[in-house]
Amino acid sequence: MHSDLLFNQLCDGWWSLPCGTRNLITDVSGVKVGHTTLTSGSARTGVTAILPHGGDLFGDKVEAAVAVLNGFGKSVGLVQLEELGQIETPIVLSNTFAMPVCSSALIKRAVEDNPDIGRSLPTVNALALECNDGLLNDIQSMHVTERDVFAAIEAADVEFTLGAVGAGTGMRTFGFAGGLGSASRLINIEDAEYTLGALVLSNFGQQSELRFCGRRMIGTDEIVEHEDKGSIIIVLATDAPLDSRQLKRVAKRASAALGRTGSYLGHGSGDIAIAFSTATPSDDRIAERLLDKLFLATVEATEEAIYRAMWHSESRVGYDGTQLPSFRKFLEEG
Amino acid sequence: MHSDLLFNQLCDGWWSLPCGTRNLITDVSGVKVGHTTLTSGSARTGVTAILPHGGDLFGDKVEAAVAVLNGFGKSVGLVQLEELGQIETPIVLSNTFAMPVCSSALIKRAVEDNPDIGRSLPTVNALALECNDGLLNDIQSMHVTERDVFAAIEAADVEFTLGAVGAGTGMRTFGFAGGLGSASRLINIEDAEYTLGALVLSNFGQQSELRFCGRRMIGTDEIVEHEDKGSIIIVLATDAPLDSRQLKRVAKRASAALGRTGSYLGHGSGDIAIAFSTATPSDDRIAERLLDKLFLATVEATEEAIYRAMWHSESRVGYDGTQLPSFRKFLEEG
Amino acid sequence: MHSDLLFNQLCDGWWSLPCGTRNLITDVSGVKVGHTTLTSGSARTGVTAILPHGGDLFGDKVEAAVAVLNGFGKSVGLVQLEELGQIETPIVLSNTFAMPVCSSALIKRAVEDNPDIGRSLPTVNALALECNDGLLNDIQSMHVTERDVFAAIEAADVEFTLGAVGAGTGMRTFGFAGGLGSASRLINIEDAEYTLGALVLSNFGQQSELRFCGRRMIGTDEIVEHEDKGSIIIVLATDAPLDSRQLKRVAKRASAALGRTGSYLGHGSGDIAIAFSTATPSDDRIAERLLDKLFLATVEATEEAIYRAMWHSESRVGYDGTQLPSFRKFLEEG
Amino acid sequence: MHSDLLFNQLCDGWWSLPCGTRNLITDVSGVKVGHTTLTSGSARTGVTAILPHGGDLFGDKVEAAVAVLNGFGKSVGLVQLEELGQIETPIVLSNTFAMPVCSSALIKRAVEDNPDIGRSLPTVNALALECNDGLLNDIQSMHVTERDVFAAIEAADVEFTLGAVGAGTGMRTFGFAGGLGSASRLINIEDAEYTLGALVLSNFGQQSELRFCGRRMIGTDEIVEHEDKGSIIIVLATDAPLDSRQLKRVAKRASAALGRTGSYLGHGSGDIAIAFSTATPSDDRIAERLLDKLFLATVEATEEAIYRAMWHSESRVGYDGTQLPSFRKFLEEG
Repeated sequence: MHSDLLFNQLCDGWWSLPCGTRNLITDVSGVKVGHTTLTSGSARTGVTAILPHGGDLFGDKVEAAVAVLNGFGKSVGLVQLEELGQIETPIVLSNTFAMPVCSSALIKRAVEDNPDIGRSLPTVNALALECNDGLLNDIQSMHVTERDVFAAIEAADVEFTLGAVGAGTGMRTFGFAGGLGSASRLINIEDAEYTLGALVLSNFGQQSELRFCGRRMIGTDEIVEHEDKGSIIIVLATDAPLDSRQLKRVAKRASAALGRTGSYLGHGSGDIAIAFSTATPSDDRIAERLLDKLFLATVEATEEAIYRAMWHSESRVGYDGTQLPSFRKFLEEG
Repeated sequence: MHSDLLFNQLCDGWWSLPCGTRNLITDVSGVKVGHTTLTSGSARTGVTAILPHGGDLFGDKVEAAVAVLNGFGKSVGLVQLEELGQIETPIVLSNTFAMPVCSSALIKRAVEDNPDIGRSLPTVNALALECNDGLLNDIQSMHVTERDVFAAIEAADVEFTLGAVGAGTGMRTFGFAGGLGSASRLINIEDAEYTLGALVLSNFGQQSELRFCGRRMIGTDEIVEHEDKGSIIIVLATDAPLDSRQLKRVAKRASAALGRTGSYLGHGSGDIAIAFSTATPSDDRIAERLLDKLFLATVEATEEAIYRAMWHSESRVGYDGTQLPSFRKFLEEG
Repeated sequence: MHSDLLFNQLCDGWWSLPCGTRNLITDVSGVKVGHTTLTSGSARTGVTAILPHGGDLFGDKVEAAVAVLNGFGKSVGLVQLEELGQIETPIVLSNTFAMPVCSSALIKRAVEDNPDIGRSLPTVNALALECNDGLLNDIQSMHVTERDVFAAIEAADVEFTLGAVGAGTGMRTFGFAGGLGSASRLINIEDAEYTLGALVLSNFGQQSELRFCGRRMIGTDEIVEHEDKGSIIIVLATDAPLDSRQLKRVAKRASAALGRTGSYLGHGSGDIAIAFSTATPSDDRIAERLLDKLFLATVEATEEAIYRAMWHSESRVGYDGTQLPSFRKFLEEG
Repeated sequence: MHSDLLFNQLCDGWWSLPCGTRNLITDVSGVKVGHTTLTSGSARTGVTAILPHGGDLFGDKVEAAVAVLNGFGKSVGLVQLEELGQIETPIVLSNTFAMPVCSSALIKRAVEDNPDIGRSLPTVNALALECNDGLLNDIQSMHVTERDVFAAIEAADVEFTLGAVGAGTGMRTFGFAGGLGSASRLINIEDAEYTLGALVLSNFGQQSELRFCGRRMIGTDEIVEHEDKGSIIIVLATDAPLDSRQLKRVAKRASAALGRTGSYLGHGSGDIAIAFSTATPSDDRIAERLLDKLFLATVEATEEAIYRAMWHSESRVGYDGTQLPSFRKFLEEG
């Protein structure tokens, strides 16, 4: 799609671990991702859905955990995830004001598949996470509908687009067009090969602080220009058998990746990481002392996912004319 | 309204602290509560709104904290409350599937009062908490609308009804009709008098385990009949100047009150306590070593609020004919 | 030992679940408890050791969790327990100022059994918990030695004494002589029988607030007399296969038991619960929806353990002449 | 002391914020640091004490918070710090097995200054944090004594040495001699100038992952060589008026600094950050939206403190002959 030569040059020697076939979260077997992108009228927004597996998640829950790195955010469903360590709906990403429709769509979908929810069965814990795309998107108009959520889930596939698409349509990263990024890493633990994939909804970062693979890209001593506000959601998937406590340890490592890119987890940035395992719960969990490679894979995949979100975003114009440059163009034009 | 003679007999000698004028959360100056009650057709549900003060909460935020006693719940807005220690919308209670409309209503109301929200101002953290009233209410029909939320906020007053009203319309407590309860306590700390009020949305408890002021009411050795599922939301208000960390300590004490009533914080019971202070943030906070009376007041007000929710609920018939007896009638007919 | 007729009368009808053979934490197979009691000179203190199993705990760790109900306490080893969900030394209880010698004794003992600790093996996480017995014990004299800790571990057996013994020697509960209590409960979950046992180091409670099986024992409207300070440590053992996340849920339920006895988790009371499972980690953990009976067992065993700590303590005289009455005598003499 | 030309070249352009006069944590007015260094016989260890102010800390407590970034650690005193948000003893750093003597020394010192501790006054919460220096130090011999702790406190001054001194004597960082580092940053918030200082006890990092100011220093694709074990303790001081909740937000940002240096917060690395404010509690706390510069200062000061710990450590020989190279020599000799 893009000539990634320059990207690869910038990253040369930076990573320690090999990436998977697609370098996407969907390198973790069974995981699928779909987008709905809304750009007509004043809309610069959308929905991205991550499916841990293709079946009914309410009936076949997935071991998971959340790490709230900075809690200035309005994500929905985290309280029960923290208590029970399980995901029971697709993970839906969108803008802040779309959380209500994302939740109601997930509830309705789960009820349709499980008509006893809220009756003989417990209610369902809709999992929806958000960043504020109000810089480019007319967020007050609440463009996202339940149908858009269903469409993103329907569209889920192993291949999916990166950049200013889906929930990432109106996002900004370090002052450039940002949005949806993903990457993956392969690791070996005691003769078994595992994959860890990251997907980020990237909408954070103070431009002057950006580090790209350790390079400071925009020189300035001033912090005034931009604040680090806007948030990042990080979704981590692995086929390694981990329980919820271990997955929480994995999720926490995302903060190291944020640090590498130049983030200081700004006050106004809702930085939240979710990790889930696609392994069957009856599998023996990995011994604690062997987790280090998963931790390193988490840092690398998250960091590269952020760079790829920036790399794949074209320059953008907001509903009110606000312009966001493309990071790739900024580099190419030097 | 009711002859409370029997209630007072049962409680005789149980409390240590005096209650406020109304024995309601609104004994805390400035606090108001309003209901919308929906009982037509298959609806047995509603909305209850708690206003910490009468002004614009987004502009004039209130110091607060949350304690998740058992996180099997779908409440919205707790992540940011935990991070920033502030409430910036009314607290809205309703049924589990009404969380999306409660959130969207709160967002729209805040935007109307603050048109720059999501633009030059940050987004707003809607605070909505829930219990599952699916036993009596046709929860899948999603009866609650944004208009119902606005109406509950509009209706807010210092006087309000207890029992099966508002968000409590379809609730069950220890096998009886339950719902909305409230109580308050007065305390002295170093020559200053403070009020602490509790409001509960009570929908929890295994019938055979009920203790009412230390009396076991329903004898049985069996736990099979009912599970302790259904949840309780506890809202605590005080005019004592406390910061968020201290308010979290207050909120945690609600678990002792639950224990007193016979709860074991059942797996399926989303038990969540929120505490806020109406004092101006610049007031010096109370010295830590003087908090004990506030803790005792929390336990007593929460416990009595639960009893009052039961006491004030008439017997109920669900949308499908399910019957819930009145606790008061059960006692009177003894 | 004591005529427990009065005790049984007071508790009649209060419990729902049957207790184990000994009504001690050691009803959980494999668990042993031992005391060292120090009463000479100005010492009114001691050590109590709980052994989850008889083997080398560093090599054969035990799944566990901690719930800090109120963190005004100086217990040692909780950070790593929270992170890794495992216990790797005996659990040692003593007075606040004995935490250093308890830790060093546990370190030395583990090193003796595992000479590579701190070299090719990681260091060991000593687990020691405390209450302040300074009312009766001359705590500043630091009477406890490493040898006392070793002796308590050596003395561990399935039978052990309750009351003012071991770590409980100088403790006060609700204004009476308190100390070491224990109880157990038997439950059935899907055709399997499990045992849950509680052991408490009980040193908490404001006298006027005491409830004994729902009875208010000491009437007064005043809170001035005593504060709820002094702390309680609760150790919960079960043979049910639970992982660390589930054990944390179990441990949290201890707060409901505290509430039942009249505690409001006073500011100065370090209230900490630890739960561990003796099941082999490879056993399938119990399904979440089946945990309720374990939760109820936790509340009942903890509550009764507190009463038994009080019941079995004779009246005490402190190093400076301070007198603490016996609760049993108080009752018997009416 | 050292020719820091090369150091400055490597860091050129990496930082955004200016450092204080000494580029030490003691640039925060009132803060002092002292060491005891033990290198005779098999000892390669020591003690470092940080004094938030020169007075009696038990009587004049300091607002503070802790962030446990990875809890594989045996630090003492964190439970009460988390609950009450205050520090009441000097902060003492040493090796893992020295925690007991560090605690007992702090208790005795506090009792000497406040003879009613544990009697009419509550007990004291000794705050001692650790890394495992067992690679170079014969940790099982428990070389550190209470006298060494007192000596470190006595030695506290605004000037202090960096590198392999005090608690850092036997530490390793990214495969090189590591130990004690410090740095500071100056920031302006609404016309007021504040200082934030960091001190690290640095004993972490997998050599092949090291990034130094964004430069990968040791090329390899393998993770086998070293694990990221050994831990880092980060102490952050500021004169900005922050309450405990805000200081916890500050402390959490240390994880971003760890990420920048190449850490993935390894499983075996106890990574713990403490932050305190020297401002008087009655000062109005800084508005939440103005915290970003403090967050950036935290990341920069922590990151530079780690580099300075490495830079100032000469090559080391352990008690058993193990050699650790000097990072500075490694660079100079290219």
